[in-house]
Amino acid sequence: MLHPDRLFPVDPSVRALARSLYDQTQALPIVSPHGHTDPRWYAENQPFPDPAQLFVVPDHYVFRMLYSQGIDLTQLGVPRVDGGPTETDGRKIWRLFAENFQLFRATPSRMWLEHAFEDVFGVSKRLSAETADEIYDHISDCLQKPEFLPRALFERFNIEVIATTESPLDELKWHEMIRQSGWNGRVVTAYRPDPVIDPEFEGFATNIERFGELTGEDATTWSGYLAAHRNRRAFFKSYGATSSDHGHATARTENLSADQAKALFDKGLTGRITPEEADAFRGHMLTEMARMSLEDGLVLQIHPGSFRNHSAGIMNRHGRDKGFDIPTRTDYVRALKPMLDAVGMERDLSVILFTLDETSYSRELAPLAGAYPCLKLGPAWWFFDSPEGMRRFRELTTETAGFYNTVGFNDDTRAFCSIPARHDVARRVDAAYLATLVATGRLEEDEAAGLAHDLAYGLAKKAYKL
Amino acid sequence: MLHPDRLFPVDPSVRALARSLYDQTQALPIVSPHGHTDPRWYAENQPFPDPAQLFVVPDHYVFRMLYSQGIDLTQLGVPRVDGGPTETDGRKIWRLFAENFQLFRATPSRMWLEHAFEDVFGVSKRLSAETADEIYDHISDCLQKPEFLPRALFERFNIEVIATTESPLDELKWHEMIRQSGWNGRVVTAYRPDPVIDPEFEGFATNIERFGELTGEDATTWSGYLAAHRNRRAFFKSYGATSSDHGHATARTENLSADQAKALFDKGLTGRITPEEADAFRGHMLTEMARMSLEDGLVLQIHPGSFRNHSAGIMNRHGRDKGFDIPTRTDYVRALKPMLDAVGMERDLSVILFTLDETSYSRELAPLAGAYPCLKLGPAWWFFDSPEGMRRFRELTTETAGFYNTVGFNDDTRAFCSIPARHDVARRVDAAYLATLVATGRLEEDEAAGLAHDLAYGLAKKAYKL
Amino acid sequence: MLHPDRLFPVDPSVRALARSLYDQTQALPIVSPHGHTDPRWYAENQPFPDPAQLFVVPDHYVFRMLYSQGIDLTQLGVPRVDGGPTETDGRKIWRLFAENFQLFRATPSRMWLEHAFEDVFGVSKRLSAETADEIYDHISDCLQKPEFLPRALFERFNIEVIATTESPLDELKWHEMIRQSGWNGRVVTAYRPDPVIDPEFEGFATNIERFGELTGEDATTWSGYLAAHRNRRAFFKSYGATSSDHGHATARTENLSADQAKALFDKGLTGRITPEEADAFRGHMLTEMARMSLEDGLVLQIHPGSFRNHSAGIMNRHGRDKGFDIPTRTDYVRALKPMLDAVGMERDLSVILFTLDETSYSRELAPLAGAYPCLKLGPAWWFFDSPEGMRRFRELTTETAGFYNTVGFNDDTRAFCSIPARHDVARRVDAAYLATLVATGRLEEDEAAGLAHDLAYGLAKKAYKL
Repeated sequence: MLHPDRLFPVDPSVRALARSLYDQTQALPIVSPHGHTDPRWYAENQPFPDPAQLFVVPDHYVFRMLYSQGIDLTQLGVPRVDGGPTETDGRKIWRLFAENFQLFRATPSRMWLEHAFEDVFGVSKRLSAETADEIYDHISDCLQKPEFLPRALFERFNIEVIATTESPLDELKWHEMIRQSGWNGRVVTAYRPDPVIDPEFEGFATNIERFGELTGEDATTWSGYLAAHRNRRAFFKSYGATSSDHGHATARTENLSADQAKALFDKGLTGRITPEEADAFRGHMLTEMARMSLEDGLVLQIHPGSFRNHSAGIMNRHGRDKGFDIPTRTDYVRALKPMLDAVGMERDLSVILFTLDETSYSRELAPLAGAYPCLKLGPAWWFFDSPEGMRRFRELTTETAGFYNTVGFNDDTRAFCSIPARHDVARRVDAAYLATLVATGRLEEDEAAGLAHDLAYGLAKKAYKL
Repeated sequence: MLHPDRLFPVDPSVRALARSLYDQTQALPIVSPHGHTDPRWYAENQPFPDPAQLFVVPDHYVFRMLYSQGIDLTQLGVPRVDGGPTETDGRKIWRLFAENFQLFRATPSRMWLEHAFEDVFGVSKRLSAETADEIYDHISDCLQKPEFLPRALFERFNIEVIATTESPLDELKWHEMIRQSGWNGRVVTAYRPDPVIDPEFEGFATNIERFGELTGEDATTWSGYLAAHRNRRAFFKSYGATSSDHGHATARTENLSADQAKALFDKGLTGRITPEEADAFRGHMLTEMARMSLEDGLVLQIHPGSFRNHSAGIMNRHGRDKGFDIPTRTDYVRALKPMLDAVGMERDLSVILFTLDETSYSRELAPLAGAYPCLKLGPAWWFFDSPEGMRRFRELTTETAGFYNTVGFNDDTRAFCSIPARHDVARRVDAAYLATLVATGRLEEDEAAGLAHDLAYGLAKKAYKL
Repeated sequence: MLHPDRLFPVDPSVRALARSLYDQTQALPIVSPHGHTDPRWYAENQPFPDPAQLFVVPDHYVFRMLYSQGIDLTQLGVPRVDGGPTETDGRKIWRLFAENFQLFRATPSRMWLEHAFEDVFGVSKRLSAETADEIYDHISDCLQKPEFLPRALFERFNIEVIATTESPLDELKWHEMIRQSGWNGRVVTAYRPDPVIDPEFEGFATNIERFGELTGEDATTWSGYLAAHRNRRAFFKSYGATSSDHGHATARTENLSADQAKALFDKGLTGRITPEEADAFRGHMLTEMARMSLEDGLVLQIHPGSFRNHSAGIMNRHGRDKGFDIPTRTDYVRALKPMLDAVGMERDLSVILFTLDETSYSRELAPLAGAYPCLKLGPAWWFFDSPEGMRRFRELTTETAGFYNTVGFNDDTRAFCSIPARHDVARRVDAAYLATLVATGRLEEDEAAGLAHDLAYGLAKKAYKL
C-alpha cells in the first residue's frame, strides 16, 4: 500500500539522491518535543479500546472531513455536550469511516492512516466498504496483544523522548505514575498556562483560585500570581518540562508597567474585562513568560492565529476542539516588537514561533528569525503539517533564515499511531528538498547528509534542550 | 501550434501517466455551470460579426493587456461612454492585436486564443504582423459558414449544459426564444441580483421599482422585497436556473433582525445610506439568499473581493468591466460567521465560495470547506483561471479540503470560442496534478482515473445540480 | 565549487534547453539600473581594504545571519553608535565568518559569496575553519593587484552602466570626480529624496534648510520646496540620473490640494506633525514626484513595505540598516489609487513598483501592471532576490502581467563583488523558467530565446531609459 519512494522527487537521479538521504535518517530515534498524546496511556499501559476509538472518534482531522460531507458527528461517536446519545458501536463507526475513505484522498490524514495500518498493524489492503470488517477485526485482535500496549508501541516507534502538554492546573498524576512505574520511556510534560493566562478562558477566576491552592501562593494578587507561575513552572520542570506553550488568538505581545498589568489582571478576575484588555493582558503575559524563561530556561513556544470553535452550532452541541478551528491572518512584525524590545537581545532566551498564516513565512517570520538570536521557527503546523505544507515551509523560509534558525519537526498530535508516520513524512519531505538543492547546485552532498540528520533529530534536541 | 503534451509534467514517466489520465477525460461533455456568454447568440443563431468582434473587442483580458502597453482602447474598438468615435474597422483592430501578440506570451489568453484558432478555425500559423491578414480572412470566411453559427459550435464543443448569468430585471426573453425554437441545446440562466441587492448599484431605487413591476409585489417594502426575490427566483428556476450568484466587494455576511434589515433597506431606497450600512445590507442579503436557497434549492455562489473599476479615467471614458477590476485582500473567517451561525448547519444548503485572494486558499477556505457541510470551494477564478493558478489551487486546498469539497471547473467566460480551451486547460492541469500525486505515492492510479473524471465532469454536475 | 548547471531544472531535456537559453545571455553586458554601490570606489579607484571589509562588515545579509545565531555584531566589526570598541582585525572577523559558514547553506548569500570567491578571486575550496586563513590570504593578495581595483573589476564584470543612489543633499562629488577622471565606465546617480520628503526622517528641518542652500531656493516654503526638487532633479539628471526612488513604509499615495499639502509641509518643518499626517505627506509627495516625472522624464521607483530598524536595541547600539528591516503586509490597490487617478492615464509616465509582500504579486501588482500603462513591476526584491523568490515572482506575475510589464533585473546591492553573481542567478532562474514554459507547451523556443535576452538586458535598458 505504501509506495517505498513516496514523497520523493520524480526525476530518477534526484529521487535516488533523496532516497539515499532518507535512508540515513529513517531509523533515527523519534524526538517529539511538542504534542498532545495522553500521558495516561503510558502510565496505565492499558490496551487501546477499539479501532474506531483509536483512529476516528478522537481525531478531529478525520471526523471533520467526514462531517464536511454530511455525516453527523453523533454517527461518528463524537460525544455531545448535553450527554445525549451518540454512536458507541465501534464497528458501525468504522464502517461509516471505511465507506467514505475516498474523502481523504491526497490528504495527509490518508497517508498517516495507511502508514499506521500497514506499519503498525500489518494491514496491506486499502480501507473500503468491502474491507472494513476484515481490517476492523484484524486491528481489534492486535490491540489485545501485549505488543500493542502503549509502552510496547512507544518502544517500537523508537521514541527517545516525547512531550505531552498540560495545564498548570493539572497535578501531573500520570507523569508521577510513569515515574513510579520504573518504566524507562522518557515522557516529559510542557507548561501550557492558557487557562490561567487568558481572562476569557472558561472559569478564569476559579482557575486562578485553584492555581493559588496548587502553588501555595495568593494567586489573586499580581505578585502572588507571578510567583504561582514561577512555582508551577518549577514543578513542571521537575517532571521534565523544557518548554512552555501559548495558544493565543494573535501573536500580540505587550510590555506593560506592573501597575497596568495588575489593573488588567484585577479586571480579569472580576470578569469585567473588555476583549481588547484581555488581549493586552495575554500579550503582556508572553513578555512575563519570556522573563521567567530567562530565569528557568524553559523554551517559549507561541502558537497563534487560530479562530477557535468557529461554528456556534458545533460548539453548543459538541464543545471545543471539534475541527472548527480556522486559521486567520496573523501579524508578527508589530505584534512581537514589545516583547522583543524588552528581552529580544538576551542571548539565553529561546522563543519558537509557529504560524497558521503561510504568508508570514517569507515576509515576516524568516526575516525575524534570521536576525533575532532569541527567535527560532517552529515547523509547518497543523493544516500545514503535510507534504505540500512542509515543502512550502522550506522553500519560503530557508533562503532568508537558513536551516539553523529552525527547530526540526514537531508531530503535535493526539493520534498515537500517527507519530511514526508524521516523522516519516517530515523526513521524506526534507530529504526531497535537500536532494533538490543538491541537484540544482545549491548544496553539496556531504552538507545535505549532515542537514538531513539535523532536521530529523539534532535540531529538535538542541532547540528544546532535550 | 498546440503542443500535444502541453501542461503535463516534464518527467517522461509522469508525463505518460498524465497523458493517460487526460485521454480519459478529454472527450467528456462540457458542463459549464457558471459563465457570461450571451443567450442571444443561442437564441438568434446569427453569425459572429468578425474576428476582432469575436476575439478582441469584448474580451477585457485581451484589450487590457494591449492597453497596459500604451495602445488606446479606442484603437481597439472599445466603445466610449460618450458615444465618441472608436475604431470600427475589424481588420485594423486585428492588425494591431496581431502586431502585439507577443505581449500575451505565457499568459492563459495566449493559450485560449491559439486553442480557438487551431481547434475551432483550423489556423496553424502563429499570429503576427505577417500573418494577421491571412488569419483574419480565414476566420472571417469561416464565420459565414453554417458550421460556425453559435448553435453549431455549441454542439461541436460538446456542451452538455451551459449557464448564463442574468439580473432579476432581465425578462429572459432570449432564454424564452431558445425554448420556443425547439433547439435542444441546454442553456440555463442563473440569478445574479446585485442590481437589486447592492444599494450602491447605479439606479438602485429605480431597479427596485422595476423589480416590483416584474414580480407583482410591492418591492419597496421589506416583506414585498423578499417576496419579489422569491417570486423571481422561481421564475429563473423555470428557465433552468440552479444557482444564484453574488459579486460583492467583500465576503461579509450579516444576520440582522428584520427591523434592522428593513431600516437599512429603507435607507438604501432613499439613497441616504452610508457605505458601511450598504455593506451591512449586502451582507445581510447573503443570509436571506441562503435562507431562500433552503426553500428553493438554488445553490448560492459568492464571488467577492474585486475592487471594481479601479481607474476613474477608464470608468469615465469607457465605463464598467474594462479590465480595471483589481483583486483585494479578502477575509472569510470573520466575514462568513454570521451566515454560518444562522444556517451553516443545514444539510441541504450549498454555498460555493470563490476568491481573488490566493492567500485564503490554505488559510481560510480549505479549513472552512473541510469542516462545514454547506460550504464548497469554487475553482481558481478570473486571474487565477490559468495553469499556475489552477496548480496553486490544488496544491493549497487539497490537503485540507480534499477533492470532494470542490466543485469541478467553471469557465466563467464571455468569450465563446475559449470555452473548449478553458476546459481543456483545466483537464490537463488536473491530470498533471493527479499524475504527480500518483508518482509520489500519494494516490493510486485507479483512484486518479476516477478523480480525473469527477474533476472534469461529475463534480460540476453534482454541485450545481445539473 | 560552482555547479555549471546550478539553478536549472532537473529533468535532463529541460535542463539542456535552459542551458542553451542561458548560454545566449550569460555573456551579455550587465545593466544595473538600481543599486547602492559607493561611487567613491569608482572615483578613487583604491584597493578594497581586506576580505572582511569586502565581504562581511558592510553586508547586512551576512552579519545578520551570524548575529541570529548568537555572534555579537562587535565581533564582526560592525561599528557602534557610541564609537565604542568593535573588532578591527580583518582576519579574526574572517575566521569567525568561516567557522560559521554552514549557516548560509541554501541561502542566496552563499551562492553570491561562492560565485565571487571562485569567479572573481579564483578560490576553489569551500570556506570553513580549515580553509579560512588560506582563502583570506589569497583574497588579500589579490586585492593589492591592479586587476582587482574597482575600475578593473567594473570592466571585468562587463558592466555597461550602473546606477548608484544618492540623497538630494549629496553634492555628487564622487560622480564629478569620475567624470573628471576621463575613465569611460558609465556610473550614473539616482534621486532618492527620502531625507527631504519624509517628515519623520532624522533632521528633516535641517535637511530642508540644506536643500534650499544647495538649490538656491527658499525650500522652507511649499512652492520653493517644489522648485528645489525640480532644480535638484535636473542636477541629478546632469549626472546621468534616469530615475528617482522612494523607500516609504507603505505604498500610500495622496493627491492633496496645494493648501492641504502646504499645511502638512509646514507642520513637518516644525516637527509637530502626527504619524498619520507624515504618512499623508509622503503619499502626496509621490504624486508630486510623478508630476515632475512627466516634466523631466525620470522614472519613479516605489520601494515600500519595510518596517525599518525593528530592534530598538540594535538601533541604539549600531544604528540604521543593520539587518533589522522586516517586511510587512503592503496594500497597493487602495494605496495607489489617488496617484493613479491623478496621473495614471499619462502615456509618458513610468512608475516601477516593488514589494516585500509576495502575496501582492498575483493579487494586486500583476493586475495593476497588466492594466495601467504607467505601471511596471520591479523584479523580486531584497529577501526575494533569490532563486525561489525569483521563481515565485515569475510564476505569480507572468500569467496576468506578461513579461513586458516587467523591467528586467536589479541587483540592488552594496556588495560590489556580488554583482556578477546576482545577475548570473537572475539569468539562470529566468532561463529555467522559460525552458519550463517551452517544455510544457506554453512558449515556442524562438520566443524563449528572445525573451531570455530581453529579461537579461533589453528590458532594463528600456524601462530605465539607459
